[in-house]
Amino acid sequence: MNAVILSIGDELVLGQTVDTNAAWLSDRLVACGVMPVMHVSVADDRGAIAEAIRDAAERTKLVIATGGLGPTEDDLTRFALADAMGVELAVDETALGAIEEFFRARGRTMIDRNRVQAMKPAGATMLENPLGTAPGIRALIGETTLYFLPGVPVEMRRMWELHIEPTLGADGAVILGAKINTFGMGESDVAEKLGELMARDRNPTVGTTVEGGVVSVRVRSAGDTNAAARRELEATCAEVEKRLGGIVFGHDDATLADAVGEMLKRCGRTVACAESCTGGLVGKMLTDRPGSSAYFLGSFVTYADAMKREVLGVGAEVLERDGAVSEAAVTAMAEGALDCSGADYAVSITGIAGPDGGSAQKPVGTVWFGLAQRGRPTVAERRRFPGERDIVRERSANFALNLLRLRISDQLL
Amino acid sequence: MNAVILSIGDELVLGQTVDTNAAWLSDRLVACGVMPVMHVSVADDRGAIAEAIRDAAERTKLVIATGGLGPTEDDLTRFALADAMGVELAVDETALGAIEEFFRARGRTMIDRNRVQAMKPAGATMLENPLGTAPGIRALIGETTLYFLPGVPVEMRRMWELHIEPTLGADGAVILGAKINTFGMGESDVAEKLGELMARDRNPTVGTTVEGGVVSVRVRSAGDTNAAARRELEATCAEVEKRLGGIVFGHDDATLADAVGEMLKRCGRTVACAESCTGGLVGKMLTDRPGSSAYFLGSFVTYADAMKREVLGVGAEVLERDGAVSEAAVTAMAEGALDCSGADYAVSITGIAGPDGGSAQKPVGTVWFGLAQRGRPTVAERRRFPGERDIVRERSANFALNLLRLRISDQLL
Repeated sequence: MNAVILSIGDELVLGQTVDTNAAWLSDRLVACGVMPVMHVSVADDRGAIAEAIRDAAERTKLVIATGGLGPTEDDLTRFALADAMGVELAVDETALGAIEEFFRARGRTMIDRNRVQAMKPAGATMLENPLGTAPGIRALIGETTLYFLPGVPVEMRRMWELHIEPTLGADGAVILGAKINTFGMGESDVAEKLGELMARDRNPTVGTTVEGGVVSVRVRSAGDTNAAARRELEATCAEVEKRLGGIVFGHDDATLADAVGEMLKRCGRTVACAESCTGGLVGKMLTDRPGSSAYFLGSFVTYADAMKREVLGVGAEVLERDGAVSEAAVTAMAEGALDCSGADYAVSITGIAGPDGGSAQKPVGTVWFGLAQRGRPTVAERRRFPGERDIVRERSANFALNLLRLRISDQLL
Repeated sequence: MNAVILSIGDELVLGQTVDTNAAWLSDRLVACGVMPVMHVSVADDRGAIAEAIRDAAERTKLVIATGGLGPTEDDLTRFALADAMGVELAVDETALGAIEEFFRARGRTMIDRNRVQAMKPAGATMLENPLGTAPGIRALIGETTLYFLPGVPVEMRRMWELHIEPTLGADGAVILGAKINTFGMGESDVAEKLGELMARDRNPTVGTTVEGGVVSVRVRSAGDTNAAARRELEATCAEVEKRLGGIVFGHDDATLADAVGEMLKRCGRTVACAESCTGGLVGKMLTDRPGSSAYFLGSFVTYADAMKREVLGVGAEVLERDGAVSEAAVTAMAEGALDCSGADYAVSITGIAGPDGGSAQKPVGTVWFGLAQRGRPTVAERRRFPGERDIVRERSANFALNLLRLRISDQLL
């Protein structure tokens, strides 16, 4: 089964809000074996919404729409739906009671403006909204079922779980997806290694995306049953992992910080960081993950040279002679962080994120990385990353985490 | 003039990636006086892309499409465009040379797979991509101009500025927008203060959005000429700022870190941080801004209690008696950061970001903030933020930056 996702609202079409609902709904539909074939966003314009509803209903048997069910003058979805169905609106007394109760329970009186939220096109069904005043609507146009949900993400998600998901994908054809995340090789080199696995007409399909230096391989498997789709998915994922080897660090939403965190937890070791150009980003990434206090001790964000000297003990002569972006400085930073924190590992970063501060010898994008470990020689590596400040910083943070990952994984073997 | 924005890629339609390009392009189109009327996303399916291109071309005089121009087998946009135009593809020798040069400059050889990126439909024009290997394409279908850009945001944005923006909005009716950013008051209280300015039928229109505790007021002004739209925009913005007073910290894309950075630069002072639950986020935010080395010295990310003790000198008895999330601890952290860094100001954060670690006395979301300044008593404040880990962390970082902003702005008066 295919589906169209329709997002309604001026703020979307004018670019004031990024539409995260469509991606969330698509992800859930795919998990239920329904293939989203199109996302459409239209403005708060009664005619445009009605046309989009009719178009979508002609295209597929399932339409999920969000937005435009509120009480204000720019909430026009119910009117447009009635137009598309060719019927009138009428008050639903049960829904009206529920809205009044919603206000009463919060010690407020329903204002008249909210009355419109109890109106539905003749023949349509109201859907309860446990988290807000806007009920949803289910309607039929020809053989197509259309669901209309509020645009507020938390309300929309709860109503999806309550009213839509239970009706889908009990059995029959399904599509399963998986993502394999890699770091350390460019996208076209990854594609080269995957070769014929990326052929368009293959099932499961295999594609790649890239962000912050992380190349993700996306596998999607269609099957007549869940078991069949799962079997094919796992076989392809195993083949992808075999071809890519050590650059694979995790699956699905796992980040490099997740991979590093898991490994540190497994071996009971700790890490500290010394950051200059990333300004705290590595620490932020490591602590995005709940429970990171088990292995992350802290980060010395030594942005000023004086901090590198006084907090981490980087020699004044090193900063004088080689500069803050140098092998000697990054090595001293890593060793200083190791000593000051008592951690088992310390990673350090110092570089020129730009746009200013570059020179012929050290152009913008030049970044040094250090990795110190008790009883092992400290290593340092230099890279030059293309792109703007935030891109250089994100790539740098990921590179440092990957350096640590490779070291720990060597030692876990 | 109206426009349709077309986003191409399985990852979008399947919900694996949120489409931020469409919102960005819409925002820019609006600024040029072009009204986006629809966003459409389709999968990497040659037939579906060709149909979407034809549909969009019938609907408006301007189509901006992104995605599907890469070198892999699931990059089908150029083929679909040729189908929609009813022409063949041919190699563009200039584009081929540019791609070969892109690889040569990076010390690599172009692999055969990248050749396809030099192909364009007969009659179309290649658009230079200064940041990647995928050139864009400009084409005509009937009287509609269609632009095809790569899906990688940084490449897409640069190419918009290079190839599209200069061709738009020279004169005639325009829509101008502005954003006024505030911190310290909830969205409904802001709306209450704005009152009738938020009426739907008013020009300029006024609306609010909220993210990370920052409530932004968006003003959009339509006018027959740029001068008329500008005049109305400025009058409404002035009225908004008058009503909101000291909670206003900046305009358009300015963040709290930008506001703080500007003020510190103006008064020639410096700041350091001591972070626990934010893990480096405040340092990261302050250094997102180029030139931040003029005022940001560094951040002590003391996630482990031992680091709070040994690096910042928080008393063992304080941690024992009051715990790490306490007024005494946050005060000692701020004062320790001030002493260790030699900065003029130090802000500190310690809290329970969740999901675990909460208790009846200190529930998840409890965060203490400290602000130390040489020769002034250190102040501490406690807040409790609702929401999940990342939301609590972002709110906390912004709260700390705002605390600093209010202190400096008092002293600048």
